[in-house]
Amino acid sequence: MMRAGPSQEEIRKHNLGTLLRHVHLGGPTSRAELTSLMGLNRSTIMALTADLTAAGLVREELPRDTGRAGRPSLVVRPETARVYVLAFEVGVDRLAAARIGLGGVILDRREIVRERGPFDMGQVVGTLAGFARQMRRRTRDDTVCVGAAAAFCGAVRKSDGLVRSGPNIGAEEVPLAEELSRRLQLGLPVSVGNDANLGALAEHTRGVGMDCRDLVYLHGDVGIGGGVIVNGQLLGGHGGYGGEVGHMIVNPDGRPCGCGSRGCLEAEVGERALMEHAGRYGEGRGRDGVRDVVDAADRGDVVAQGALQRVGGWLGLGVANLVNIFNPEMVIFGGMLREIYLGSAAQVRSRIATGTLAATREHVRLRTSTLGDDATLMGAAEMAFARVLADPLEALSRVAN
Amino acid sequence: MMRAGPSQEEIRKHNLGTLLRHVHLGGPTSRAELTSLMGLNRSTIMALTADLTAAGLVREELPRDTGRAGRPSLVVRPETARVYVLAFEVGVDRLAAARIGLGGVILDRREIVRERGPFDMGQVVGTLAGFARQMRRRTRDDTVCVGAAAAFCGAVRKSDGLVRSGPNIGAEEVPLAEELSRRLQLGLPVSVGNDANLGALAEHTRGVGMDCRDLVYLHGDVGIGGGVIVNGQLLGGHGGYGGEVGHMIVNPDGRPCGCGSRGCLEAEVGERALMEHAGRYGEGRGRDGVRDVVDAADRGDVVAQGALQRVGGWLGLGVANLVNIFNPEMVIFGGMLREIYLGSAAQVRSRIATGTLAATREHVRLRTSTLGDDATLMGAAEMAFARVLADPLEALSRVAN
Repeated sequence: MMRAGPSQEEIRKHNLGTLLRHVHLGGPTSRAELTSLMGLNRSTIMALTADLTAAGLVREELPRDTGRAGRPSLVVRPETARVYVLAFEVGVDRLAAARIGLGGVILDRREIVRERGPFDMGQVVGTLAGFARQMRRRTRDDTVCVGAAAAFCGAVRKSDGLVRSGPNIGAEEVPLAEELSRRLQLGLPVSVGNDANLGALAEHTRGVGMDCRDLVYLHGDVGIGGGVIVNGQLLGGHGGYGGEVGHMIVNPDGRPCGCGSRGCLEAEVGERALMEHAGRYGEGRGRDGVRDVVDAADRGDVVAQGALQRVGGWLGLGVANLVNIFNPEMVIFGGMLREIYLGSAAQVRSRIATGTLAATREHVRLRTSTLGDDATLMGAAEMAFARVLADPLEALSRVAN
Repeated sequence: MMRAGPSQEEIRKHNLGTLLRHVHLGGPTSRAELTSLMGLNRSTIMALTADLTAAGLVREELPRDTGRAGRPSLVVRPETARVYVLAFEVGVDRLAAARIGLGGVILDRREIVRERGPFDMGQVVGTLAGFARQMRRRTRDDTVCVGAAAAFCGAVRKSDGLVRSGPNIGAEEVPLAEELSRRLQLGLPVSVGNDANLGALAEHTRGVGMDCRDLVYLHGDVGIGGGVIVNGQLLGGHGGYGGEVGHMIVNPDGRPCGCGSRGCLEAEVGERALMEHAGRYGEGRGRDGVRDVVDAADRGDVVAQGALQRVGGWLGLGVANLVNIFNPEMVIFGGMLREIYLGSAAQVRSRIATGTLAATREHVRLRTSTLGDDATLMGAAEMAFARVLADPLEALSRVAN
């Protein structure tokens, strides 16, 4: 609720955050553009930019080449090399970490294959903390870490980043955010979010869904997760578990699912279903195994083609339901689902054509993730940047050097 | 985006709307409460109240009985008898209209049974316009109509209230909002919304879901519609067609649906499925037919019991999917689904227990609509009041007397 009129201090804080968000998401932006984008006058923009510059969050410089005559407007750039966050990913098959600069630039990155098996908190957190140490050791002295967040392949409680469940990685009731905060010793809290939710956020802010206010992102790891943007905002639900579309039941008499139910989208479309239908279960796994099936189908292998068609039909049914439920502008296939969708697009499109209302499907576009394997890390980075964008100067008073 | 600081005029408009919304939704409210609710000082509240009083939207009076010593704070009441909207409902089996006063009070009401058959725009709009004329003729001279809106049992385009489809009422591509605006001659545009969307809005603002920021409302007419509140806002989707959960496919090999697909929630749980399973198709129809089946099951009729169990299982599967997708605090059963849910709650609950993640279901409450048959009309009224709540004084400059 807007009160009597926000105080000057509140307005300034809000405007600082808005300006910083513009350059963080849009890249170098001229003062003239900011003036017009923010509806403020030039002197206010100058004052805000001066504050952010003094804080070391942005710098002003002459544009490289304006192509126009006359005195060019100074360009405001994010201090990408100086201000960064740490982003982590805990997937079934990989542990990854990146140092991502303001403006969304990956400055450094580490990744290791995770062996499948029970979730070992000490090993996971130890690996990620090690990555963080290595990357921070290589930074210049004047850099600041303004946040940290991790993407996790399971249901995560919004309030405190507790992992509630991650059947594909064998995790249940794991205080991941707490443990990461403790081990990283950044003096900053570490946030944790569901990987598909963060993938949706990343594709919405920097990827193929940048211009969509309503989109569904489907992420295939071993299982299937979802993230939904509704009117520009990530769908969270009451506890933050919204978007668990991988456990939508599409085939009531279908295959058993790791969640204990039967016929979930994940059970019919996930890695195991595809590999079993292709007669290759146990031969290859992870992204490589899925790619092998898609490649074989491309080369005319009828068993692989049949497996993809079968999986694609269920994927299409799930997407059809989501189109009727959300009336999105775009459905994005990410992670392993990029390959599966590209190998079964005909089945998916046909199921949408027969299984949705003309009105709900008429403007929907089906796309693959443009951020690819970085989508979840980029989403974690956006989660980590949220604090500095909400209140830039306050956030800087508490950073890890 | 908040700009340099909103102008004094914008702040005043916003505060007038906020104050009016408080008394519209919360009923008579003391100046002291408004001061605290809105975070404004007493003199600002006095000035705002004076403006709204002068416009005839509220009045101030001594509270009936404070039960406290000392000088009581004046109470601000909505001018319910003076300021009203017209709300309409176009259902498969009924046409209804109500005159609803500021504060959400039904002042007058008309209803007629609609015979099933093709959609006849002239008849529908003629009937509703006749109801409006009758009700307006009975108002006092000083009353003002500040808006009008209709709930329709089908997919409605947000931008202009065009009915895209309503298979159960035989409507397709019908310019209902335009025709209602023309025939009512109020000098005001008439809005049209999907009935289940408006039911969700009503239960969220005045019904059982008042305290929930995330809820799913399921509305049974002949078919099944849905309305979803996500973080306090009605889910619209790109074109306004979001929430078409009745056409979520729950049984891929299931019964044909009026939408052309197969195994939709509506096809498995709607009136026809229940009546056929109960061996009563063609005997009774509408709400009465459904009630007869539920009553028969209560009296021990095993065929009726079997029909309810079967339908309840599919309803439970659909609700389970929605719980995983939305992680709502509450699922509300309205319209004909009240009876069906009450007659099959065990099946519904069992399906949710086995078909959802522990995290997504843990806080969900299942409830029946408290606004009952008025939910959609009340929702239409809220849609009609939106204009006066957004800008009270401007809206009053264009009213139907």
